[in-house]
Amino acid sequence: MIEYLENGTITSVKGIKAAGIFCGLKKQKKDLALIYSESPANVAGTFTLNKVQAAPLLISKDIISKDQKVRAILINSGNANACTGEKGLNNATETQEFCARHLGIEKEEVLVSSTGVIGIQLDIEKIKEGITKIQLSESNSAGHDAAEAILTTDTYPKSFACKVQLSNGEVRIGGICKGSGMIMPNMATMLAFIATDAEIPKHLAQNLILEAVNKSFNRISVDGDTSTNDMVVLMANGASKISINEENNDYKIFKVALRDLCKKMAMAIVKDGEGATKFISVKVASAKSETDADSAAKAVVNSSLVKTAIYGADANWGRILSAVGNSGINFSPEKVMIKVGELPLLNPGYDSNFDESIAKEILLQKEIDITIELNEGESSTTWWTCDFSEQYVKINANYRT
Amino acid sequence: MIEYLENGTITSVKGIKAAGIFCGLKKQKKDLALIYSESPANVAGTFTLNKVQAAPLLISKDIISKDQKVRAILINSGNANACTGEKGLNNATETQEFCARHLGIEKEEVLVSSTGVIGIQLDIEKIKEGITKIQLSESNSAGHDAAEAILTTDTYPKSFACKVQLSNGEVRIGGICKGSGMIMPNMATMLAFIATDAEIPKHLAQNLILEAVNKSFNRISVDGDTSTNDMVVLMANGASKISINEENNDYKIFKVALRDLCKKMAMAIVKDGEGATKFISVKVASAKSETDADSAAKAVVNSSLVKTAIYGADANWGRILSAVGNSGINFSPEKVMIKVGELPLLNPGYDSNFDESIAKEILLQKEIDITIELNEGESSTTWWTCDFSEQYVKINANYRT
Repeated sequence: MIEYLENGTITSVKGIKAAGIFCGLKKQKKDLALIYSESPANVAGTFTLNKVQAAPLLISKDIISKDQKVRAILINSGNANACTGEKGLNNATETQEFCARHLGIEKEEVLVSSTGVIGIQLDIEKIKEGITKIQLSESNSAGHDAAEAILTTDTYPKSFACKVQLSNGEVRIGGICKGSGMIMPNMATMLAFIATDAEIPKHLAQNLILEAVNKSFNRISVDGDTSTNDMVVLMANGASKISINEENNDYKIFKVALRDLCKKMAMAIVKDGEGATKFISVKVASAKSETDADSAAKAVVNSSLVKTAIYGADANWGRILSAVGNSGINFSPEKVMIKVGELPLLNPGYDSNFDESIAKEILLQKEIDITIELNEGESSTTWWTCDFSEQYVKINANYRT
Repeated sequence: MIEYLENGTITSVKGIKAAGIFCGLKKQKKDLALIYSESPANVAGTFTLNKVQAAPLLISKDIISKDQKVRAILINSGNANACTGEKGLNNATETQEFCARHLGIEKEEVLVSSTGVIGIQLDIEKIKEGITKIQLSESNSAGHDAAEAILTTDTYPKSFACKVQLSNGEVRIGGICKGSGMIMPNMATMLAFIATDAEIPKHLAQNLILEAVNKSFNRISVDGDTSTNDMVVLMANGASKISINEENNDYKIFKVALRDLCKKMAMAIVKDGEGATKFISVKVASAKSETDADSAAKAVVNSSLVKTAIYGADANWGRILSAVGNSGINFSPEKVMIKVGELPLLNPGYDSNFDESIAKEILLQKEIDITIELNEGESSTTWWTCDFSEQYVKINANYRT
């Protein structure tokens, strides 16, 4: 029921235009993106749980908390506008107003978002000048330009779009996101902007995005740190004239599609994690509850010891079991089975007897599946992370100066 | 009131003998230690919170939970005897029994402890043969030998002892510990064995060690992982004939001394952390509550981003503030002040204006003090950690194989 579009991006969605340009906040790379919906869109979103929240995040969060439709999202990279106090808030508001005037819409119809350096005031003259130069377009390349302009230390832009067949016709969902270089010079920001041409009331859109984020972006980890600027936004502009008005079958189909798209985006972020050489899926199965499964998986994807072992292609099941032991869940370690790929490293009863050379061969691959069977119940989950290389330390040790 | 003894160790305590030898579990380094009290000692301890617990830990924990005096602690390095199932438990019991017979005491008077590889059965014949060769001595060098024999990837042995003047005379406290190379081949184990010749009833000893550990070993972090074998044990053998029977002034004096000794041991562990090039103290001051202060400090010492920045001598206050923001406590980021050494990097109101070259100079030193003033209340705390270098990744990537 979900069909991904080749070269798809946020502009694959009906009524969505975009642009990405260089305005001078970075040295030479694209640093200003605009996403625009021809018709006012219902909007929903989730935001960082960090108590330190950037100025643009406060503004966008406030708009999304109200019953306010949105037409545009203005995003800059190169400067996070975080820890910038009242001046930072004023700067964010000024770019928001300038952008709204330029587009001929209301200030409250423009969300703002920033990523980059913390603690330095935004050069808003550059942003304003940039806005006047922006040429919105509904082409794929415009969407990809926007995806490029929101990057910090990511090594490639991330765009996805899919078609979903509902009972009354087809809708599209498209998105761009950036991740988890935790660098330049302070930390990464995880940003994702998603649009759909389905017509979805705000409260349903909010449920949909929360559920999708919970099963995708909230299940990835690069280094366990959370940024001041993280946000995921869903705009539903209704341009397809196909409505999802209640939690019916169409809602369920759309939910699965949105979750799948978010999962693709989240996985792309992990793959492009700082210094990452491998993509790791951690499946925790037969847990007592979903909460237990998630706690165990979270502990494993956040363990530096597990991530360095995978980097070194070392079949170190003791570190995996110990990470689960540190997760706080109740389980019997002697019942646990741990596999990499299809190879059991540990069987119940602490029975470990495997061919190291086969394990090595599996662990030398670029994508590693770890399965942890707790043998305690029926619940399971999968989280994603990357390995931990010397490159991560190098990138992060000498960044700001 | 506390006087540290030059070259002091666990055998500086009256009635305590020790030994450390090579029995063959490691390739050539000392790997078997015995601590022995001439008179039965009251014993107290704290143990890892990891759900995966090693066989010797289960045995020792059980003894300490009972009203049982103890005479000896047998410790091996090179093999953790963790995740070894029933055979592991039998092996630990057999070494415990053999050791007791050899010393002419009861099995329940012997604690056992192990550190090293996970998931491999202990070669108990080597340990038994080792026990028969052990020559206990009350010399300083015997204490240092024991300190050496409990190491895994630590780069030097850690011993401390002090004299404490109480109202009726002098008592001594001495200890050996090992840390936080998180390596060989699975993870580090934090072990500390402390003895005192004061006479202290079991319940008071338990309170004393809990309080001391809480303010020392529980405030350090190398990589946020907790081992399957961690334990801290306090033996009080009464050989000084000086008693602490209630929570009087002597109790308070002893409490301060024990806490100080534990702090010294904890700091030594951090300084010898894997790949560590710098020692970092993180003081969180003017917090609303002690819990808040501890949560904030814990988030900072566990942040890979902060630790890589310090490694790179980068005055990246944004990462420090963001780590506090991730700690879950309630605070106003705009009220925060952050200093390294005496240099403010951030003043309240997001006012950051410092001389980068002075900051660099401070951060290039071997010991770094970070102070975070929350300006919310009266509580404060200090935690300790080390920086995060490429060496950590190298050590941990290729260990087991």
